[in-house]
Amino acid sequence: MTTNNAVTVLGLGAMGSAIAKTFLDRGYRTTVWNRTPSKAAPLADAGATVAATPAEAAAASPLVVIALLDGPAVDEVLKSLGTAVDGKVLANVTSGSPARARDTERWAREHGAAYLDGKIMGDPPYVGTPDIMFPFSGSRDAFAAHETTLKELGTVAYHGEDAGAAAVEFLAQVAVSYELLIGFLHTLRLVRAEGADVTAFADRVGGSLPLYPALLSSMAQAVTTGAYGPDLGSLDVQAALMDDMISHRESVGVDAVRMREVKKLMDRRIADGHGDQGFSSLFEVLGKV
Amino acid sequence: MTTNNAVTVLGLGAMGSAIAKTFLDRGYRTTVWNRTPSKAAPLADAGATVAATPAEAAAASPLVVIALLDGPAVDEVLKSLGTAVDGKVLANVTSGSPARARDTERWAREHGAAYLDGKIMGDPPYVGTPDIMFPFSGSRDAFAAHETTLKELGTVAYHGEDAGAAAVEFLAQVAVSYELLIGFLHTLRLVRAEGADVTAFADRVGGSLPLYPALLSSMAQAVTTGAYGPDLGSLDVQAALMDDMISHRESVGVDAVRMREVKKLMDRRIADGHGDQGFSSLFEVLGKV
Ligand SMILES: NC(=O)c1ccc[n+]([C@@H]2O[C@H](COP(=O)([O-])OP(=O)(O)OC[C@H]3O[C@@H](n4cnc5c(N)ncnc54)[C@H](OP(=O)(O)O)[C@@H]3O)[C@@H](O)[C@H]2O)c1
Ligand SMILES: NC(=O)c1ccc[n+]([C@@H]2O[C@H](COP(=O)([O-])OP(=O)(O)OC[C@H]3O[C@@H](n4cnc5c(N)ncnc54)[C@H](OP(=O)(O)O)[C@@H]3O)[C@@H](O)[C@H]2O)c1
Repeated sequence: MTTNNAVTVLGLGAMGSAIAKTFLDRGYRTTVWNRTPSKAAPLADAGATVAATPAEAAAASPLVVIALLDGPAVDEVLKSLGTAVDGKVLANVTSGSPARARDTERWAREHGAAYLDGKIMGDPPYVGTPDIMFPFSGSRDAFAAHETTLKELGTVAYHGEDAGAAAVEFLAQVAVSYELLIGFLHTLRLVRAEGADVTAFADRVGGSLPLYPALLSSMAQAVTTGAYGPDLGSLDVQAALMDDMISHRESVGVDAVRMREVKKLMDRRIADGHGDQGFSSLFEVLGKV
Repeated sequence: MTTNNAVTVLGLGAMGSAIAKTFLDRGYRTTVWNRTPSKAAPLADAGATVAATPAEAAAASPLVVIALLDGPAVDEVLKSLGTAVDGKVLANVTSGSPARARDTERWAREHGAAYLDGKIMGDPPYVGTPDIMFPFSGSRDAFAAHETTLKELGTVAYHGEDAGAAAVEFLAQVAVSYELLIGFLHTLRLVRAEGADVTAFADRVGGSLPLYPALLSSMAQAVTTGAYGPDLGSLDVQAALMDDMISHRESVGVDAVRMREVKKLMDRRIADGHGDQGFSSLFEVLGKV
């Protein structure tokens, strides 16, 4: 009964439910389990087989997708799986660190399972569309065997045999996103304090974003080669406005932590004789001021 | 001789030179001055009149564009202008704070000049193209009278009679940009420390940016109305991955200042009973942890 068309989903929170529903909609024989059984009801209605235990669920399919809250939840559920995972592929899409992913892979290997670590970049409503990204890493063979099935969930990418690689990608992408968004929220306070229109400001920020993909690529290129052009203007010119920016933020009670850091990095770089280079050259002194 | 087709540019650094060159290329009778006279030579070759003093330069045209390094440089040059600005429009595109802009406007008014404060969002090579933005604020009449001329320089927007409004826009836009870019640079160190491809990572970040304009608009909307949906997922779910993210960054020696702040804000918001809301709701507790 465990055919390639069968898949098991452990964890039916917002994400696990969206994943199980997508598999059902695409015609997969789907077995599900959740700690709180009531969450399985809508999926049972949609045709899923509801298992009484994680082990029973895992036994039903060659591919076991795990979508729980966090690493400790995964450890708890894995403990109860025991020998039921022998010969299976575990695809764990729970958020977590590279170190956790590598630990879980070790556990899987010791229990006779192949391991894929996946991360989810996007919200549950996007599951089943190309607008949600699933980086995977770990067993290359397991990825090749189940790529078609995993692609039902969204845009899938394989980041290599190091089980931690998908987590590196995920944590790095989320961090860049949070840096942008928390800086944006602080700055909305400044815009509001000055009586300007917050929504119109957000639209103008959005309007400038199309210029960034090329900028980010050229910055990464500069960091890789060490050849720093004057991106965003020379540091000599950029630094000249930082005191005004910082004192303005402080005058309206708005956070300036990052802007003070940027100013210090610029000053350090200029003192080192590189005032003709641009913003990307701050990479060389990160953590050194 | 001071017709609407005449314009003066004070300051011939990278930006002032690009501005003067654009006016010349579009057929304006252009008078220039720079503290270090040698920088005027290429513009003289291109047809500009080179003045010996700022006052002589200002006397030549109804519109005087000022593009100097910073506020102190502007103050120094203005002092030497004195009565030469009576009846002129000063359009000062030097970077600086809203407070400085309001001070300079006061000086202009006391000396019989109308004042426009402008800021420049873009690099010198883009001057004369739509890809560089010039927010202006201050005298509405002066803006109306010289809008056509100013539009030669790029995409121009008028932000209202408060002379400080263009600086608010500029400092806010630059801050959001720097928050994104410094967070990006820190994260490149993490990506490199983990042995992943920095340039490929940058391209994937760039690939995700098209989703942001809609997100930023909806976040600004939420901040305005106070109705916070679970953007980027609920805080309960987002907070669960922050410890892993922070310990991962610290394990490879990469800055986690902002991520620790985000975690504290999420914890505070969850403790306040709002764990079902999303990232934008952190706005309510900014500066409170
Ligand atoms: N939601 C999003 O927007 C989003 C986006 C990207 C990534 N993710 C990631 O996807 C994963 C799942 O998120 P979600 O939105 O589905 O979260 P959720 O709605 O809060 O669901 C959490 C799931 O974990 C289970 N669980 C928690 N602790 C457990 C334990 N000790 N033992 C067994 N089961 C346990 C819950 O079971 P009960 O029902 O019994 O509580 C539930 O099935 C998380 O790692 C999250 O970071 C989510
Ligand atoms: N470059 C960019 O990418 C960029 C982008 C956006 C905004 N901006 C802004 O545009 C403005 C000009 O930038 P820039 O790139 O042209 O800078 P720049 O190339 O360094 O030129 C600075 C100019 O200011 C003059 N100056 C400095 N101190 C002076 C003083 N005390 N008295 C008289 N003149 C003085 C310099 O004269 P000398 O030639 O005699 O030194 C030169 O003309 C700045 O406010 C900058 O923030 C620049």
